[in-house]
Amino acid sequence: MNREMIGKRIKAIHHQLNKKKIDCLVVTKPANVTYTTGFSGDDSWAVITKGRVYLLTDSRYIEQAQKECIGCGIIQRKDSLAEAVAKLLKKLKSVQAVTVEKSASLADFGELKRSVKARLKTVGNIIESIRSSKDSGEIAAIKAAASIAAQALKRTLRHTRPGMTENELAGMLDFQIRKLGARNSFETIVAFGPNASRPHHQPSKRRLKKKDTILIDFGARYKGYCSDITRCFAVGRSTTFYKKVYDVVEQAQAAAIDTVKAGVEMVQVDAAAREVISKYDLPVYGHGTGHGLGLEIHESPFLKAESKGKLKAGEVITIEPGIYIPGKLGVRIEDDVLVTDTGSKILTRSCPHTLKLSN
Amino acid sequence: MNREMIGKRIKAIHHQLNKKKIDCLVVTKPANVTYTTGFSGDDSWAVITKGRVYLLTDSRYIEQAQKECIGCGIIQRKDSLAEAVAKLLKKLKSVQAVTVEKSASLADFGELKRSVKARLKTVGNIIESIRSSKDSGEIAAIKAAASIAAQALKRTLRHTRPGMTENELAGMLDFQIRKLGARNSFETIVAFGPNASRPHHQPSKRRLKKKDTILIDFGARYKGYCSDITRCFAVGRSTTFYKKVYDVVEQAQAAAIDTVKAGVEMVQVDAAAREVISKYDLPVYGHGTGHGLGLEIHESPFLKAESKGKLKAGEVITIEPGIYIPGKLGVRIEDDVLVTDTGSKILTRSCPHTLKLSN
Repeated sequence: MNREMIGKRIKAIHHQLNKKKIDCLVVTKPANVTYTTGFSGDDSWAVITKGRVYLLTDSRYIEQAQKECIGCGIIQRKDSLAEAVAKLLKKLKSVQAVTVEKSASLADFGELKRSVKARLKTVGNIIESIRSSKDSGEIAAIKAAASIAAQALKRTLRHTRPGMTENELAGMLDFQIRKLGARNSFETIVAFGPNASRPHHQPSKRRLKKKDTILIDFGARYKGYCSDITRCFAVGRSTTFYKKVYDVVEQAQAAAIDTVKAGVEMVQVDAAAREVISKYDLPVYGHGTGHGLGLEIHESPFLKAESKGKLKAGEVITIEPGIYIPGKLGVRIEDDVLVTDTGSKILTRSCPHTLKLSN
Repeated sequence: MNREMIGKRIKAIHHQLNKKKIDCLVVTKPANVTYTTGFSGDDSWAVITKGRVYLLTDSRYIEQAQKECIGCGIIQRKDSLAEAVAKLLKKLKSVQAVTVEKSASLADFGELKRSVKARLKTVGNIIESIRSSKDSGEIAAIKAAASIAAQALKRTLRHTRPGMTENELAGMLDFQIRKLGARNSFETIVAFGPNASRPHHQPSKRRLKKKDTILIDFGARYKGYCSDITRCFAVGRSTTFYKKVYDVVEQAQAAAIDTVKAGVEMVQVDAAAREVISKYDLPVYGHGTGHGLGLEIHESPFLKAESKGKLKAGEVITIEPGIYIPGKLGVRIEDDVLVTDTGSKILTRSCPHTLKLSN
């Protein structure tokens, strides 16, 4: 993370803090800590005051923090995070009120209340709302993460054969992602045949048949940023019904992507996909149509039937409609899309849609 | 998860709830939801009333919940989790006050406050304190998870050669864990040479040299339960200093394990390891000496210099002292240990300590 990029972020955060008259923000959500400090480890908080950003971490991460966090005050804590905040604030005498992110737990807030002398307040979505608009470095990282995922899938499919288990296929894919210098952005879903009707199926010992279907929902995390892709394949001759369902899902996805543009109501994008599926009298999916992604695999904005608000330029969202028929099949197609002022840009072009698994 | 096992857990939870005069507990921590319902998915809460346990989940997980959650009321939500709780409570008219786990976020608590009509209270560590004592099924699952990890490591080391990157080694290990029907219990740490001085190093492109050292900290998750193991190896001829450090860490670990027994103060176990390292004038590690593990990779109890309380029979803890010299080396040895009334039982025996990598 370079100093200029972090500087811009801190400036945007300070702008929000000033607007809300916040003196001092305690950042507890890991992705928000990474965003403001560049730190990629765990069990650490950031404290943002008017003048400075501090990272509170422990001995396990000191070397890493010194490498990653340029321009940050790095504080090695021996006590709990709440106690470390209290100690820091004692030194920073000017702080009157301390604001804590609403993503913090009741337990952490309670401990802060006991340790910190200043008045405590809470606030939600300050950093999340800034994070939802990606800068060029972040977009490049997501695109690179998508390209690594695509490459890993290509290599994996080359070795996919009837007889393999869902577990093996997932393991091979994860291995390829690692070999390409990335890691998983979440636990890979591989579902054969009717297992795909469970949108969050966990890979099992189920073996691939000669005539079968595969759903793979996976992503690579590169430089901290996530990609999220779902592809479906038919092995051997696929049924006419499966082909039809696949075609309808692809149409639904295209319809949703077509509506994406800065300023468009999110419900409109959501409805576009559902309408296509309804039109064909097929069951409409129960999950959302998409979600933001970046440092977190699921982050603001969330596109669903109840969404409020409009898309903004710079947001990166998934578009992932599906059709699920328990005991029979499941098809979902998912791409990552950048929202622009004139429409959208698909960041997962490196991973083509192809129904047929050819090897 | 069988009905009898879940039944016992619910009984123990009800006993605690009665003692604390809690009518209705909203369970928000994922591991606690799994413990009380058997459900292994995400984004779901449990509600425990005097008469029943309910799982609140969404359409993605309905099929899975019906398979996994025997004896539970399964409620498919369309709204937020907080709203789903409010709707359920409306039907259960007898509930006067609702208690929420302290691990819940301020945001979730705030939403519950707005949606639920009943009085809200908070409580910490009810289910965690029950979970910390493992039953025979849980101990068997952890032992099996350790044995899978050991097998995966053995297979991986067979293919470990100079020239490989940390990323590749980590990827191979993860692949073997998958092939054995398990998944990672956390992101595998592989650190070559001086990289091991960072206890939570992230695998990199660093290649293994002909004369080098390897630290691997990894675990398998099997049937939901975690193992957590660290092993260190020398490749080629190791230096006398590395050997000495390794030997001291092993002595420190043995000293700590020797003190483990139900009723022993946790600080005593922690001190036993540190004393050995101090005696040799080597730098004492900054992290804790161990932690509980089970459905979570880090769970109660935590063994460190500031720990309060005694070990209890049935707890499964790691014992993992280390020596870290930045720019030079890092050695940590970690095993998983069951606390018994007469001492301890090492659950990671399947994974022998061997300094030398022979292949």
